[in-house]
Amino acid sequence: MPVYEKFLAGRVSRLAASEVRELLKLTEGKDVISFGGGLPDPSTFMKEELAEIARDVILRFGDKALQYAPTKGVLVFRETLKGFLKARDVKVSGDDDVIVTTGSQEALYLASLTLMGARDVVIVEEPTYLAALNVFKFFKTRVIPVDVDDNGIKTDVLEGKLKSLKSEGVNVKLVYTIPTAQNPTGVTLSFERRKHLIELASQHDLLLLEDDPYGYFTFEVERPPPLKSMDSEGRVLYFGTFSKIMAPGFRLGWALGPSRLIDVMELAKQGVDLHSSTLSQYIAMEAIKRGVVDATIEKARHLYKAKRDIMLGELEDHMEDLAAWTKPLGGFFVFLTLKRAIDTKKLLPEAIERGVAYVPGQAFYVMKNGSNTMRLNYSYPTPDQIKTGIRRLASIIRDKVM
Amino acid sequence: MPVYEKFLAGRVSRLAASEVRELLKLTEGKDVISFGGGLPDPSTFMKEELAEIARDVILRFGDKALQYAPTKGVLVFRETLKGFLKARDVKVSGDDDVIVTTGSQEALYLASLTLMGARDVVIVEEPTYLAALNVFKFFKTRVIPVDVDDNGIKTDVLEGKLKSLKSEGVNVKLVYTIPTAQNPTGVTLSFERRKHLIELASQHDLLLLEDDPYGYFTFEVERPPPLKSMDSEGRVLYFGTFSKIMAPGFRLGWALGPSRLIDVMELAKQGVDLHSSTLSQYIAMEAIKRGVVDATIEKARHLYKAKRDIMLGELEDHMEDLAAWTKPLGGFFVFLTLKRAIDTKKLLPEAIERGVAYVPGQAFYVMKNGSNTMRLNYSYPTPDQIKTGIRRLASIIRDKVM
Repeated sequence: MPVYEKFLAGRVSRLAASEVRELLKLTEGKDVISFGGGLPDPSTFMKEELAEIARDVILRFGDKALQYAPTKGVLVFRETLKGFLKARDVKVSGDDDVIVTTGSQEALYLASLTLMGARDVVIVEEPTYLAALNVFKFFKTRVIPVDVDDNGIKTDVLEGKLKSLKSEGVNVKLVYTIPTAQNPTGVTLSFERRKHLIELASQHDLLLLEDDPYGYFTFEVERPPPLKSMDSEGRVLYFGTFSKIMAPGFRLGWALGPSRLIDVMELAKQGVDLHSSTLSQYIAMEAIKRGVVDATIEKARHLYKAKRDIMLGELEDHMEDLAAWTKPLGGFFVFLTLKRAIDTKKLLPEAIERGVAYVPGQAFYVMKNGSNTMRLNYSYPTPDQIKTGIRRLASIIRDKVM
Repeated sequence: MPVYEKFLAGRVSRLAASEVRELLKLTEGKDVISFGGGLPDPSTFMKEELAEIARDVILRFGDKALQYAPTKGVLVFRETLKGFLKARDVKVSGDDDVIVTTGSQEALYLASLTLMGARDVVIVEEPTYLAALNVFKFFKTRVIPVDVDDNGIKTDVLEGKLKSLKSEGVNVKLVYTIPTAQNPTGVTLSFERRKHLIELASQHDLLLLEDDPYGYFTFEVERPPPLKSMDSEGRVLYFGTFSKIMAPGFRLGWALGPSRLIDVMELAKQGVDLHSSTLSQYIAMEAIKRGVVDATIEKARHLYKAKRDIMLGELEDHMEDLAAWTKPLGGFFVFLTLKRAIDTKKLLPEAIERGVAYVPGQAFYVMKNGSNTMRLNYSYPTPDQIKTGIRRLASIIRDKVM
């Protein structure tokens, strides 16, 4: 057998295994309540309607729906998608274009490939989406964190950082943000800060990468407008996904933004995977037209609000003295900070042993702070699992504090 | 509007627009018979069966088939796929693993990302698959061509080249090959040369990337064994796709090979697109189980053989004095070399004007030789289109020779 290590390219050392995924594997086949994943509840999948659509699409449009597609996506689907976005208050301006991607992960990857040169500087929320950090690291980007609080990224801190970096001769290229129901914290950027962020982008000549997987089903309030809709200068590249508003199994996402940038992402996509599933695109098109996406969103909104309420209620009942946590307006996650300096990563094996799993918050921090934090998912577990799981978690932490 | 050019990463300059795709656009909406594409004939798609399978899979397995999947692919599908491969004489050894990819393009991309460091040396057939050349170029690989003849890559020339490179201190890392019904030439590597290639890989400690989109439906003879099946040392990474044996719209491919290499590709895929369509994987699994893939292969074999025969017959009748061409045992393409030094790239606009399109062969050459060659696709056009198209082409070339 050859020594395979000698064949590996040097860049392989910059590929990071996703800690979330490795951790999830630990819980497989065991009687563990997992708050670790980020899966939608399968009861939101409109199976009967989607089965009918899949059948119809193959029978009626099979010659096209089963054929190769253009790299940017099926033209009629891209038009339908733009219409859907407009109806959901996402501005699509005259210079904008849309590219269909293999999940929004690929949108993030293609944007990074085309925009992030080695040592380019990108600012992220801290904590932020783990998989984004991994992609930025792969492309050798210099990542600078700015804290979030209950109103999202602290734009005054951001402003100070941009100024001090400029005085050091460092030009920031872009800000990566999940402004609505952020992952991992669940917090939502306030309207005032959105305005501020847009102003800063203009003043400092930045691009904004707006990742918006959860903005379509906020719970109580109407969501603040997407940054995409507040931007008049063409500085926002907006990522979305069908994973939470239809189902993840179609592996369908998109990037919407300045056509010049979308064109370059298209070129990159030709090399990466040529195009995304044609069949998924036809199904999503029909699902939009027949109202199945709208119906999924309503279903998801109610279900996840109920689950969030259960989790927040349990936390209040059992962990008030042990921790503080975020109150998400949407999305899949509550982010919890322990009052004592307990290392949640070190605690995890014991927690799994005692029947509950979570993601240690450290994974979401650039410099691996946040050792006393954890991300809790409420979208996937059942109400009963949420109740039992939070009680187990409270008891484990209480034992450590004693 | 910002000056977007300043935001683009330097690596963007290494992204090449696919000439084939740009050329195809020229023929859209015109009365042009195109031999330019590489599409399967949609009449090979088993629409009724696939529609039924899609419906069943969503109704019966929807909770899983519409959910996120592991990065390597759905476990039960990967097992089914391995069984399918074994039944088709593709060896799956104990140390082998399989990763499901978004088309075989992504398999090629992930393998290049993980194996091809800057200035690493890879040997390719000349001419070879355009999209592979583009990916290798993106990763800054040094690409060295070795000619093919009617029996595939000239392994004696390859041997000489490996020796002379070694004497210069240049270590070749791998050989990329499409041994059966090659793209663009349609030629098939002989059994003797396969043995020789495997020996050379062992002697020179090389990996072989075997790309096999067409090997499942050779026309007359049984195909020679895949390199994968002749290798006893774990040196072959084998790529395949469902695009030609089911339909391209599912965007489903795979890489099969040493588990150490597949594991690293998995790590890369986490960043690129997390996983490929779960639904496509469930549909492909059922299509294998219900014999729909086998039936598609038989349908394709007969249809494409008939179309190839029509194209070869027309060429003999109308172009004997003007050109020489390959006699493919399988696949989608005939490769044609003009006897006179006519630049087929310069000729193309006139050809399109006169109602016929092809791909200038130059695009498939590393150093842009082959200016008097062209690739002709027979899988997609109808028999009548093939007849009329070849006659048009003959008349255009004849006018140039006069």
